[in-house]
Amino acid sequence: MKKISKEDLLRKSRIPGINAIKMHKFYKGKIQILPRCQIRDYSDFAIWYSPGVSAPSNEIFNDVQKVYDYTNKWNSIAIVSDGTRVLGLGDIGPEAALPVMEGKSMLFKYLGGVDAIPLCISKDQCCEAKQIIEFVKMIQPTFGGINLEDIEKPKCFSVLDGLRTDPEVKIPVWHDDQQGTACVVLAGLINSLRIVGKKKDDVKIVFNGVGAANFGIYRLLKADGFNLKKFLFVDSRGILYQGRSDLEDSKDYKYELVGFSNPEQLQGDCGSAMEGADILISSSIPGPNVIKKEWISKMADDAIIFVLANPIPEIFPWDALEAGARIVGTGRSDFPNQVNNSLCFPGVFRGTLDVCAKTITDEMCIAASYALANLVNEIKGCLIETCILPTMEYEELFIREAVVTGLKAIEQGIARFRLSEDELYSTAKKIIENSHSELKILMKKGLIPEFNDYTK
Amino acid sequence: MKKISKEDLLRKSRIPGINAIKMHKFYKGKIQILPRCQIRDYSDFAIWYSPGVSAPSNEIFNDVQKVYDYTNKWNSIAIVSDGTRVLGLGDIGPEAALPVMEGKSMLFKYLGGVDAIPLCISKDQCCEAKQIIEFVKMIQPTFGGINLEDIEKPKCFSVLDGLRTDPEVKIPVWHDDQQGTACVVLAGLINSLRIVGKKKDDVKIVFNGVGAANFGIYRLLKADGFNLKKFLFVDSRGILYQGRSDLEDSKDYKYELVGFSNPEQLQGDCGSAMEGADILISSSIPGPNVIKKEWISKMADDAIIFVLANPIPEIFPWDALEAGARIVGTGRSDFPNQVNNSLCFPGVFRGTLDVCAKTITDEMCIAASYALANLVNEIKGCLIETCILPTMEYEELFIREAVVTGLKAIEQGIARFRLSEDELYSTAKKIIENSHSELKILMKKGLIPEFNDYTK
Repeated sequence: MKKISKEDLLRKSRIPGINAIKMHKFYKGKIQILPRCQIRDYSDFAIWYSPGVSAPSNEIFNDVQKVYDYTNKWNSIAIVSDGTRVLGLGDIGPEAALPVMEGKSMLFKYLGGVDAIPLCISKDQCCEAKQIIEFVKMIQPTFGGINLEDIEKPKCFSVLDGLRTDPEVKIPVWHDDQQGTACVVLAGLINSLRIVGKKKDDVKIVFNGVGAANFGIYRLLKADGFNLKKFLFVDSRGILYQGRSDLEDSKDYKYELVGFSNPEQLQGDCGSAMEGADILISSSIPGPNVIKKEWISKMADDAIIFVLANPIPEIFPWDALEAGARIVGTGRSDFPNQVNNSLCFPGVFRGTLDVCAKTITDEMCIAASYALANLVNEIKGCLIETCILPTMEYEELFIREAVVTGLKAIEQGIARFRLSEDELYSTAKKIIENSHSELKILMKKGLIPEFNDYTK
Repeated sequence: MKKISKEDLLRKSRIPGINAIKMHKFYKGKIQILPRCQIRDYSDFAIWYSPGVSAPSNEIFNDVQKVYDYTNKWNSIAIVSDGTRVLGLGDIGPEAALPVMEGKSMLFKYLGGVDAIPLCISKDQCCEAKQIIEFVKMIQPTFGGINLEDIEKPKCFSVLDGLRTDPEVKIPVWHDDQQGTACVVLAGLINSLRIVGKKKDDVKIVFNGVGAANFGIYRLLKADGFNLKKFLFVDSRGILYQGRSDLEDSKDYKYELVGFSNPEQLQGDCGSAMEGADILISSSIPGPNVIKKEWISKMADDAIIFVLANPIPEIFPWDALEAGARIVGTGRSDFPNQVNNSLCFPGVFRGTLDVCAKTITDEMCIAASYALANLVNEIKGCLIETCILPTMEYEELFIREAVVTGLKAIEQGIARFRLSEDELYSTAKKIIENSHSELKILMKKGLIPEFNDYTK
């Protein structure tokens, strides 16, 4: 792997930013509303609006489930963020979060055919988890699902858990920073373990950083049967162990981790945690040199390293490989093995909405992870260290995820609609392809004009 | 005018409803999200999403006004409803209100080029005016404006007034059932008075019904300089007068009306109020025979009658004319002089958003009303009793309204952007025409398929 200096990487990283400023200004936003039905002439408004619209409204009044037949609720989700933990930028507020949420909406539509509405909510009005929960419950009638996004910890945990366990919440709620990341990491681990020939029950895993991403990953690995006794968690104060005074004092979300992890009650820094470990999953602060080469060299043979900080991973991949790692994944598209949420959420939501599932269970996530992992072998014909995950150009992956997610929901008895595997496949395929075709034709006809003034 | 029986009208009225059921089922909703910018290949996601999107987010963090440059906030509004007063259906709840709000969104886009997001909110979570106000303040960062819709009285008054006077609310808030109706009625009255040759200072006006529509109409007529002393308000208990015990007891929103109206302290029913009146504006309950012929025959010469209940007006137009009325307007598209909100809100919002106005003042509404009224003479070359308002097929009307609304906002110093009249015209024209072209091409290419199974 060609070495690039941190300076070169940062310089290269700035180019998308320069173009992003120009292009966001040119287009003035990234999403719009369009009709999904025909308007042939003004007389159609008598059907779509008064007086005709009274009829479907009345039917929904008599049977509220019909809202899924007569409105776009079946395909609509809200992207809810308070802007407190946006990408690598932190607490920048709801307005500054809006470009990110519009981008997410665009990904939802283009990759998954899902109509996702950004709702960046004011922190002044809504600083508490409880208020975000109330907000989501208020908008519930309109949406078929909720995607929580870029909400700071530990609030994000109580919001997600609060909504998922609230009996009044009848629609699926997902926090992409937790569950989406977890799905893709699990897929990467499944293939990594296949390559190195280790079993999930045996591997010792170090989690560096205990934020939304690593917390979500730990939960999904637990649900998939990884061995919790072999987990070690490390935060900025070092390894988590029972009796660590700050954990005993705060009894916050990290406290549940010391109940099962680190049975030997190790203390020390990330380096000492990594001694003999099979896997490092680091979701901490931008690198390089947050993870040191000498720490990697003390890991077990065939070490698997996921260093997910953006824009610079905690250690450069070539350094990790040089220190003895066998497989390295990062968050970047210009290195091999990109761990990218976008590989997951569009397909999982597609399948969830197509069967009108009441929630998204861990089992549905795990099914999506295995579908994602299995695709690599199918595409490439083999598994190799530098290709443990598919890239999103392979659009089939979203359809496959939708199918397994939908099937799992049906199997678990939480789907309102029962579709066959073939129906799930053709439904997802048609919806996703339509979203591509619609954009393509609007671009071709100049209704979405071209932008030409790029910085290369 | 050809007479139709109530039964025939109701039969005819049912046909849009039958087709609405079929077509809502076929299309599964009326709106969708699409990108408003190009996606040429997957590498563009590095600009629209991570890492590029950090740059515009960062700029907005440093200067929050830039959210109008880099996102679709400039063109996005929320349609907020709790479903407590939906069309003629009443309190049917947020889910049943959703087909109506999606229809409204479609009208906003098609007629005004505005991206309007339906947000039907749960009554369980949000029964109080205060909670709707808090909700709107929470979503404020995302939207360039708010359209309140189908919220029951008297809550709708406190919500609108609360939001319009709250110094923390920086975006325009509009309640279409009050302000939109008022704009169109004022336009109709302007032309009616021109036809009969009466002056706004002289006319005696009876308001039958004191709900959102008539309350909004009274307020706008007041702002335009009509003579309040010549107003009479009638509710289900008869004429409003000082000392009427229920008004004295409740001191609710109706109480302000007895402070200035009905200086002679008349008591009695609507019929007695109408004696000698020049104008009747009735927004009460579906007819016919809610307003009686003999009441109209006792009005002044050249009486002007707006009977706005749906689906059947309070009196059939032919009966009103036979009883001596000179001009009759209703809410129906199949009678002359349709008083239709859709003539107003798309243009007013277009102009408001194009100058990024901080509120929508009464003066902006009045400017739109006069633009609407003046168009009739321009289109038809003259004013006649059966054509006091343009119909929405004449698309130019929305552009004209946008221009005068925007200019008035600039003049009043509440616009963030200063555009010339020509710029306002060409901006509105381009945006509205683009929304038509986009839909047309998607229909033509079969991406929004045809529906053929109509009931005639």
